Amino acid sequence: MQSAEPKNQKSCLVATLSRYTSAVRNMEHTIMLPSLLRDVPQEEPEDSFAAEGNNKDLYEYFLMLKSVRNVVESGLMPPDERKALSVPLETLEDSDPETLFHFHLTGLFSVLNNLTTSSHMLTRRYKEVIGLSN
Amino acid sequence: MQSAEPKNQKSCLVATLSRYTSAVRNMEHTIMLPSLLRDVPQEEPEDSFAAEGNNKDLYEYFLMLKSVRNVVESGLMPPDERKALSVPLETLEDSDPETLFHFHLTGLFSVLNNLTTSSHMLTRRYKEVIGLSN
Repeated sequence: MQSAEPKNQKSCLVATLSRYTSAVRNMEHTIMLPSLLRDVPQEEPEDSFAAEGNNKDLYEYFLMLKSVRNVVESGLMPPDERKALSVPLETLEDSDPETLFHFHLTGLFSVLNNLTTSSHMLTRRYKEVIGLSN
Repeated sequence: MQSAEPKNQKSCLVATLSRYTSAVRNMEHTIMLPSLLRDVPQEEPEDSFAAEGNNKDLYEYFLMLKSVRNVVESGLMPPDERKALSVPLETLEDSDPETLFHFHLTGLFSVLNNLTTSSHMLTRRYKEVIGLSN
């Protein structure tokens, strides 16, 4: 379906945000009993969220995807979590502002696309857990 | 004026993008002869764009602000310029996706707010150059 969209539409930030909130809405609609995902590990190597090297179970992942969606929908500035990253931020702040703009925009596209894929994956995994996979 | 906006509105990404394009539109509307900015240095220490440590003259800065605005308005994915930054990107890619999302969203807010301020500053500097400052 996505491939039918014009290129401009596909890469627009607003459209990317919208695709993510839509994926999470569908995930929430499907996952009526999120607690069934407790202690279910991220075990499938093709899961994009399994590749991200964290130890969350699927329930925690479900909560994280909703939390990010809340920030996207509310538009509220998240707390500055840059200190959680061990990146020499002085390097970033010294950069040309246009380069910095492209860096963060590209990064936001990338992480949102990954989280959208994760939402679809989690929805599918839930259906497997409850025996509804087809 | 900004302080009269509700908090939610102020920090919304779409509103931040909109404020930036509006500032650049006003800048373009005012600066009828951009070539007058050629070789005008970024000399005032209170200029946010002077503090960014680059050697652009005001004409080059004008072109850069328009270039960023074109990306914002078109929504076209910019080329991946992350390699222009000397940041160990593996560190970023290994991060928790929620942390990474907050990092890029906060960074995008910050750089867009700085560029919006720069657009206002540049408009004011142009008025000084043509003797219209008041």
